[in-house]
Amino acid sequence: MTVKLLHHTPLWVADKAIGKCWNKPTPDIYDECCETTIPGCNIERIKRVALKNKHGSTVEHLNYTYNIDGMSRALLQELVRHRHCSYSVKSTRYTLKELKDIPLDDLHYHYDTFLIATGEVYTDCAMQSALEGLHAVLNQGVSNDIAKYCLPEAFKTSLVMTINARSLQNLLQLRTHKSALWEFRKLAKKLYEVLPEDHKFLFKDFIYKGKEK
Amino acid sequence: MTVKLLHHTPLWVADKAIGKCWNKPTPDIYDECCETTIPGCNIERIKRVALKNKHGSTVEHLNYTYNIDGMSRALLQELVRHRHCSYSVKSTRYTLKELKDIPLDDLHYHYDTFLIATGEVYTDCAMQSALEGLHAVLNQGVSNDIAKYCLPEAFKTSLVMTINARSLQNLLQLRTHKSALWEFRKLAKKLYEVLPEDHKFLFKDFIYKGKEK
Amino acid sequence: MTVKLLHHTPLWVADKAIGKCWNKPTPDIYDECCETTIPGCNIERIKRVALKNKHGSTVEHLNYTYNIDGMSRALLQELVRHRHCSYSVKSTRYTLKELKDIPLDDLHYHYDTFLIATGEVYTDCAMQSALEGLHAVLNQGVSNDIAKYCLPEAFKTSLVMTINARSLQNLLQLRTHKSALWEFRKLAKKLYEVLPEDHKFLFKDFIYKGKEK
Amino acid sequence: MTVKLLHHTPLWVADKAIGKCWNKPTPDIYDECCETTIPGCNIERIKRVALKNKHGSTVEHLNYTYNIDGMSRALLQELVRHRHCSYSVKSTRYTLKELKDIPLDDLHYHYDTFLIATGEVYTDCAMQSALEGLHAVLNQGVSNDIAKYCLPEAFKTSLVMTINARSLQNLLQLRTHKSALWEFRKLAKKLYEVLPEDHKFLFKDFIYKGKEK
Repeated sequence: MTVKLLHHTPLWVADKAIGKCWNKPTPDIYDECCETTIPGCNIERIKRVALKNKHGSTVEHLNYTYNIDGMSRALLQELVRHRHCSYSVKSTRYTLKELKDIPLDDLHYHYDTFLIATGEVYTDCAMQSALEGLHAVLNQGVSNDIAKYCLPEAFKTSLVMTINARSLQNLLQLRTHKSALWEFRKLAKKLYEVLPEDHKFLFKDFIYKGKEK
Repeated sequence: MTVKLLHHTPLWVADKAIGKCWNKPTPDIYDECCETTIPGCNIERIKRVALKNKHGSTVEHLNYTYNIDGMSRALLQELVRHRHCSYSVKSTRYTLKELKDIPLDDLHYHYDTFLIATGEVYTDCAMQSALEGLHAVLNQGVSNDIAKYCLPEAFKTSLVMTINARSLQNLLQLRTHKSALWEFRKLAKKLYEVLPEDHKFLFKDFIYKGKEK
Repeated sequence: MTVKLLHHTPLWVADKAIGKCWNKPTPDIYDECCETTIPGCNIERIKRVALKNKHGSTVEHLNYTYNIDGMSRALLQELVRHRHCSYSVKSTRYTLKELKDIPLDDLHYHYDTFLIATGEVYTDCAMQSALEGLHAVLNQGVSNDIAKYCLPEAFKTSLVMTINARSLQNLLQLRTHKSALWEFRKLAKKLYEVLPEDHKFLFKDFIYKGKEK
Repeated sequence: MTVKLLHHTPLWVADKAIGKCWNKPTPDIYDECCETTIPGCNIERIKRVALKNKHGSTVEHLNYTYNIDGMSRALLQELVRHRHCSYSVKSTRYTLKELKDIPLDDLHYHYDTFLIATGEVYTDCAMQSALEGLHAVLNQGVSNDIAKYCLPEAFKTSLVMTINARSLQNLLQLRTHKSALWEFRKLAKKLYEVLPEDHKFLFKDFIYKGKEK
């Protein structure tokens, strides 16, 4: 799985928003500037208002757009239940041709291209057989909207996701926890790791610190 | 697939809400009553405000709770992208034991219990093989959170869904259309069919009337 | 302020939803029945799943529709910031005629019809003067969309609000707290009080129990 | 009223998202780059998918953060009903001291500081009287949470708002229309005008082109 941060709102936007509520001026430079980092940005105030006082709405102005490649459709089932986000997902309807076009004899070289391996040998064999089944069905000329019914949930997908800081705090709290699906824990950690260093203070207290199962 | 309407808000609640905006009195009986049908309910006003004038917010007060059994997880991927709804879905984490406990020799009697058939023979064979693969993996003692990675998307799930009339109008418009996934078209039609007769006028103009593909 | 519960989803719907996730059967009677109370409804399971284990999504299926009369537009400013609700609000554009039509000499008899008194004498006098100003402006034939700019925020409004149990828990936690606006604390308490007795267990732990300011 | 665009997502993020659905590659430069404009950004594809084919979800990745100063609380009542946005609003609880501290003799110099004039003389006089009433109440030592009940809705507020392109299309369609509140039409036009020139094609078909009332 690869996770890249495509774009994010700079931190000073949250400071500007907080300043608005109490009419405490922020540096004029804010209004004219599109830089990511501004020396005058009041990190301590963001910590106090958004974290200590739990005015979570003030960090909704910060949005993060991620490019996520190579996660399973099993995980997709859980991810999209986070409703305060925007998703653009690789469509099985339009993209199964990639699999169809692989020559049968080469298919076993491409298991890793199309499947998330679990490391558990019985499961990984079973998903490979299912992939072969899907490959054969597609090559019988069956349409994607029918064929995808035999697709194993280990099948890899890609997506662009935009999430604001408040929703991301919630996602990280739930999904770094030991009770979360193993692949979601991996995703959640990566979503955190690729954040800009100066944004991480907003999230670090939401990361599960206890023992793994 | 079976779709039942478990509960719904009676229509007079929308009339009450509409009356509020213009301060036009609704029958006093409304405030004291929990009946579904009230003779005085002003259907014409609901039509004019909610449909003709497109004040969709006035029908957000009407909620429908459905029990849906026997739809595929392929469809679940698409359904839950409708975000203004509430879902409680049968969990693969907790319920794969049902499949595991079927004796291997009986499994072929149970294809229909666990899978949505497409009617396309290659696809249906492939999904049955994948189900057998999953059954074997589970009987090797592999945990559900690993085993489900080889589950085919034809696997049946069940859910309770609550959706308000405005969101349901949107869902029906998009998903009765000929371009929607075939199984979603079936679900959308059933969601409409099981509505109370006196609510159907809110939705009938959103149903696709053109030719099928 | 008067708060009435116009309609609500019966509790067994949440039990049905919870049973779905684990595929634990609920009484068959559920599917056929529209009664509010069903003997077999598993309250202990709702407590465990929705409250103790914090699976808040399972109580999103429960919706409450309130009729609220006689709250101020000052409070309306705060109330509608709760976004996961549906509102139909008495419109100043369409209903200021009620005030206009009061004869000037009778206006002082109607302060209570149009204004939320604070009990603080200077403030109450000032809002009455502002109401008289608005009355005069309307009787000069000024249109409602202009005239309402001199309307004091104590002006009474009415609305129908639909909110699900999860959002209501959040509202009650924030707005029964001593730091909330005094009129919002009053509203929040009434929203709780008029709930059906058998639903109150879902909310009572969210009610602020500390000292008032 | 002054409206500034504090920050926005660059357009190529929408192109990246669209490319994801069909697995059509976007220039590699996207992943590494934070520039606003990239020569390779496929505007025609955004037009076709997001506008012509109405896949509105693909432009939800584009967020716009505005700084809005000097709009009325009458308008705030309507604005915040757009629920798919994030708001940080100047709080009457914390900021009425600004008004209190104006010497009584200077107050008439400051009408424009605190009030949105309508241009209609009776209304503007009435709101000025109401402001004087509020000023007097505050100088009696009444607390802000009580005093604000006599505040006229013409009272100026400020806010930071973040809205995605899909919600902004909807807002512009409803609020540039001749039937919208006059001040909301002014705001909506400004929200559009300050957009980056290369983003305006996403919105221009949503702007009302008919006659004013």
